[in-house]
Amino acid sequence: MKENGKQPSRRRFIQQTAMAGAGASLLLSNPLQAFSQNDHSNTRNMSQNIKSKGYAAVDTSGKLQPWEFERRPVGDNDIQIDIKYASICHSDIHQMKGHWGPQKYPQVPGHEIAGIVTAVGKNVTKFKVGDRAGVGCMVDSCMECDSCQHGEEHYCENGQTLFTYGYPDKKSPTGITQGGYSTNIVVRDHFAVHIPEHISLQEAAPLLCAGITTYSPLIKEDFKIGDKVGVAGIGGLGHMAVKLAVSKGAEVYAFTTSPDKVEDIKSWGAKEVIVVDEAFKNMHPYNKKLDYMICTIPYQFNVAPYVACVKPYGNFTYVGMPEGFQINLSNIALAATRVNFNASLIGGMPETQEVVHYCADNGIRPEIQMISAEQINDAWEKVVNKEARYRYVIDAATFES
Amino acid sequence: MKENGKQPSRRRFIQQTAMAGAGASLLLSNPLQAFSQNDHSNTRNMSQNIKSKGYAAVDTSGKLQPWEFERRPVGDNDIQIDIKYASICHSDIHQMKGHWGPQKYPQVPGHEIAGIVTAVGKNVTKFKVGDRAGVGCMVDSCMECDSCQHGEEHYCENGQTLFTYGYPDKKSPTGITQGGYSTNIVVRDHFAVHIPEHISLQEAAPLLCAGITTYSPLIKEDFKIGDKVGVAGIGGLGHMAVKLAVSKGAEVYAFTTSPDKVEDIKSWGAKEVIVVDEAFKNMHPYNKKLDYMICTIPYQFNVAPYVACVKPYGNFTYVGMPEGFQINLSNIALAATRVNFNASLIGGMPETQEVVHYCADNGIRPEIQMISAEQINDAWEKVVNKEARYRYVIDAATFES
Repeated sequence: MKENGKQPSRRRFIQQTAMAGAGASLLLSNPLQAFSQNDHSNTRNMSQNIKSKGYAAVDTSGKLQPWEFERRPVGDNDIQIDIKYASICHSDIHQMKGHWGPQKYPQVPGHEIAGIVTAVGKNVTKFKVGDRAGVGCMVDSCMECDSCQHGEEHYCENGQTLFTYGYPDKKSPTGITQGGYSTNIVVRDHFAVHIPEHISLQEAAPLLCAGITTYSPLIKEDFKIGDKVGVAGIGGLGHMAVKLAVSKGAEVYAFTTSPDKVEDIKSWGAKEVIVVDEAFKNMHPYNKKLDYMICTIPYQFNVAPYVACVKPYGNFTYVGMPEGFQINLSNIALAATRVNFNASLIGGMPETQEVVHYCADNGIRPEIQMISAEQINDAWEKVVNKEARYRYVIDAATFES
Repeated sequence: MKENGKQPSRRRFIQQTAMAGAGASLLLSNPLQAFSQNDHSNTRNMSQNIKSKGYAAVDTSGKLQPWEFERRPVGDNDIQIDIKYASICHSDIHQMKGHWGPQKYPQVPGHEIAGIVTAVGKNVTKFKVGDRAGVGCMVDSCMECDSCQHGEEHYCENGQTLFTYGYPDKKSPTGITQGGYSTNIVVRDHFAVHIPEHISLQEAAPLLCAGITTYSPLIKEDFKIGDKVGVAGIGGLGHMAVKLAVSKGAEVYAFTTSPDKVEDIKSWGAKEVIVVDEAFKNMHPYNKKLDYMICTIPYQFNVAPYVACVKPYGNFTYVGMPEGFQINLSNIALAATRVNFNASLIGGMPETQEVVHYCADNGIRPEIQMISAEQINDAWEKVVNKEARYRYVIDAATFES
């Protein structure tokens, strides 16, 4: 875990808070206590809206501010999670700034969420009160179509994938889904995953988007041990891609524009780190050398030199989502590479559960920097300026203050 | 073969010319005569430039005019071809208009060329005088790199693929390569293919680009008999794609914006023809239905609804080359389809020879409309206006007049 070195007093505060969080988690996960809370005999009125405190965008400025709002009551198939940590994804910034289309405000971003279950609906068997749980980029879908039935709820064929924030949601008192930069969340049980005890909640949070978004295409690619796998863009997603690909036996080639990331990336097991120059000359030696490449760059970029690094007839997967989701390709350059260009969006719920277990079991951890709520705006600027190392995690307790 | 119904007197003239061409071809392919011409004892000075007459662009207007120019002398590894027919590809128009970058003028377009060998260099064993020969989109390459050694000269790794017109060429008296809208061409023997007797030269010409450009990706896709193959854009390339895919056992779904093409397309064996409306509503029923799609649309278009017709994890190959070669994709739409988007550029020389034999042997013929040189400008407008049915073939004898 990396720390935000500029504010030692805040750092100490956060460390203490994190430990308290872990303690609370152990306490609440006591089976007897959980059982007693899970018999629905608790006195809380399950039909009442849930009060929540968080940080919301109110316009396209990219600046968030404290906001108190309400969540829907815990329905029969819902769980309520007391959020302990939410981490910052570049997508949060894109969406709040309106880069992907006009937004409704106030809107609470955040789709990398980890916490403790505090209530469960009467039909819920997947979770009990006190469980450690995570929520990622989606909170509902039709659950009936072929995709949903096969664990690809993010590709719901009825178009009912409900993303975690900013999507129209009649059940929400605010009319849209509200994300994880807040003290709690109410979510259909199917769309939460279990977080095992052997990974901290703050390190689990980034797996819910950065982890699954890179894990899913890497697993689908089914590369062989020793295959040369390129990772382009070494931020929140890219650094997870490097670690995951290394753990799966790939010889990893990391492409970054930040020279000061080189030592970090090598320490994660990358075979080579290429610092990409403006003319892409440093990339020439890698022309047609890679068996596969995953690209996480979250803004418009010159696609051709990256795709050219993949061997003919190999695959290139783009998981970054730039402004307007637009990518511009030269068809003749793509033809010359003979590479298959594809894109991938997060992953389904079974695979999201899988990546959490895989990382927990194999000691794969995101590099995180703990921050408090009031540091969010500063952190967002750093993410945009490529200064994050590598994922900011917000201590949700600080939304209360 | 379809005829240009507006000018019956010209049509008769063209038919007669075509028959004369076929006669000449039979005459010259007499083995004894060919042998006598191939002993290099003929009196022609092989070091002289070759005079040629053709039609050239002199600016970006998209209008061609008669032009007399010179070809290089026939080198030791060269053959000279007396061009009988050259057909019109949308690429000719794009390049002459400067859509793919600034051009040098005068420039003679044309890369679908069929004729008779009239001279061979002293090292040439592949052809003899009198042979029927075709030239496509390239006329030279390094011949030494891995790609060239493996029959992928169009992807020469030393960047020395020399395209048939408009490319810098020190050997050419005009400084650039000059294409097939002309009376003759001098070309390195490796870059010409044999045209067997059982296909007419005028029907062979379009195979040199439209044929190979669609054949190559269809063969690489290696679809199974009965697989659903989509073809988008039913012009010169697309109509060949339909015929080739049908011949390989595919169930073909053709997508066109021209309602009056439906009956034609069905007559070639397509299972269904979808007339694409402006809102793409007619395409909805084909969402995720196709095993593969090849797209030949030669201008900017909305890629998403076409890609969406392919089953998840299937391939989509784009062989059209729009203005600036640019394609704009929505990465999130591409992710939702889970389709591999790739591009393909013509095909290598062995595969080009293969498609000519394949079409000759299997009765696969382009639909052609014969025109004379002075009809080229009119034909180009019709190509742009989607009025070609389906390939204009120029009778090269009319460049002489």
